[in-house]
Amino acid sequence: MSYADRLDGALEEVRNPCLVGIDPHLDLLPDEFAVARDENAPRAERADAVERFCIELLDLVAERVAVVKPQSAFFEVLGADGVRAFEHVVAHARSRGLLVIGDVKRSDIASTAAAYAKSFLNAGDASCDAITINPYLGADTLEPFLDACRDTGAGVYVLVRTSNPGSGSFQLHGTPPLWRTIAQVVDERGREFVGERGFSAVGAVVGATHPKELAELRAAMPRTPFLLPGYGAQGAGASDIVAAFTDERHRWRGGLVNSSRGIAFAWRKAAPGTSWKDASSRALDAMITDLQGALGIPAN
Amino acid sequence: MSYADRLDGALEEVRNPCLVGIDPHLDLLPDEFAVARDENAPRAERADAVERFCIELLDLVAERVAVVKPQSAFFEVLGADGVRAFEHVVAHARSRGLLVIGDVKRSDIASTAAAYAKSFLNAGDASCDAITINPYLGADTLEPFLDACRDTGAGVYVLVRTSNPGSGSFQLHGTPPLWRTIAQVVDERGREFVGERGFSAVGAVVGATHPKELAELRAAMPRTPFLLPGYGAQGAGASDIVAAFTDERHRWRGGLVNSSRGIAFAWRKAAPGTSWKDASSRALDAMITDLQGALGIPAN
Repeated sequence: MSYADRLDGALEEVRNPCLVGIDPHLDLLPDEFAVARDENAPRAERADAVERFCIELLDLVAERVAVVKPQSAFFEVLGADGVRAFEHVVAHARSRGLLVIGDVKRSDIASTAAAYAKSFLNAGDASCDAITINPYLGADTLEPFLDACRDTGAGVYVLVRTSNPGSGSFQLHGTPPLWRTIAQVVDERGREFVGERGFSAVGAVVGATHPKELAELRAAMPRTPFLLPGYGAQGAGASDIVAAFTDERHRWRGGLVNSSRGIAFAWRKAAPGTSWKDASSRALDAMITDLQGALGIPAN
Repeated sequence: MSYADRLDGALEEVRNPCLVGIDPHLDLLPDEFAVARDENAPRAERADAVERFCIELLDLVAERVAVVKPQSAFFEVLGADGVRAFEHVVAHARSRGLLVIGDVKRSDIASTAAAYAKSFLNAGDASCDAITINPYLGADTLEPFLDACRDTGAGVYVLVRTSNPGSGSFQLHGTPPLWRTIAQVVDERGREFVGERGFSAVGAVVGATHPKELAELRAAMPRTPFLLPGYGAQGAGASDIVAAFTDERHRWRGGLVNSSRGIAFAWRKAAPGTSWKDASSRALDAMITDLQGALGIPAN
């Protein structure tokens, strides 16, 4: 089944568009995983602590959200041992019924892009359901990733309009702005990948931090699933993402709203003595309630 | 010492601007490494074959060229085992006195970009001297990589104008074309990183397949070291890269001309019975002679 339809089905189960980012930033891990940031400890031990944290976090969010998004950089920082942990985390997420978006932002040309696609989308138990990719090298460099989607039923999210403060420096270049040209490619190339439920397996990363452009982005890419970073720690609120969601009957359809630190490291802002798991669990409840409220989704 | 000065010194030793790409494309490896492409073999064994091939290739080119460029994708395709091989290959190259450009094309925001920078530029024995990075997310996302350059004496090559056939689809967007805006950022932010020998540690990837734009690119980024892909297999010749080299006395200064398959897999086009090492060695000799001829560098 195509990523588009798997995603839509999984969202229908949980009735919320929350995407939990699995970003094991070493400096922010709870103290019981402190060995992860000990530069003198063996890397394998450090990576093992990262893996344990992520797996506990996955167990906490499973069945409450449809999708998680591990951030590759925070695994790669521990080299091959970290990548092993990434593989185990992806496999564990899938074993818990979660869809996995590998946040890898890869890009390259021809057979090199094909190798990246295989690395993440056709990697046995450690395969992601979808990955993020960077379009700058050119429309032709998206094709090897689309080939992998066709072969494996995977999805991609193309960076179109990112959430960072400086995202406009190149994405807004020209008239019309560059993002429109990229959005058009995403829309056109995504048509072939539209599933039975009306959305494509070719998605777009669209920062929730640009609420004024969101309706325009949605109009430019009507069948494109959005990945919306920027909620919470980066400053966007639930009202900022509403324009991405256009299905009047199934209000959770259209995008995934990501929160990474806001969930994983909620303990850092919680009352003293709160366990990290309790803090994360409450933060996730609050996010689900917040988004369901803004979108007008009745609680389950 | 800054990457810029280390690079310039190393080039002066070899008196040629050849950059050998270490791209262990599994399907193209010589038969003695065939286990690397056997999907039924354990990944550790497959990665070991990849590592052996790369190390033999490094030993072949050491002391003849200044810099090598391992392509991360062809290691990542074997997962954590492949990444372990990448680490060993980088460490071996450095132990042979080669500078290493990790072709990783990473990009992300804030602390995530910082984690990528640390993964490749501050990784002990497996640290690269420089890496390639993708600017699409915005000028602010280059900063964590520049911080790493400042802290570790490393370099970066920002993708400006890539060599692939479709590179114009976004890089030529707008008037002036997007690449000019990015080139300006590369030039301006690179000034702080200009070393004693007059070049910056902040480089640019500029395809040798755009000879007509090369003089313009050089004028826009006068102190920027170029990484020039596209020579050989992708169709560019020695005459196409001359405009990148502007130092009349030291004609090897200004850019690195990359060849990957043309060297590593020269045996595929060699006379039957030629060993892969002989074929690679001759291909490298031919490339050095070709570039020295086009640039007017007397042979050593």
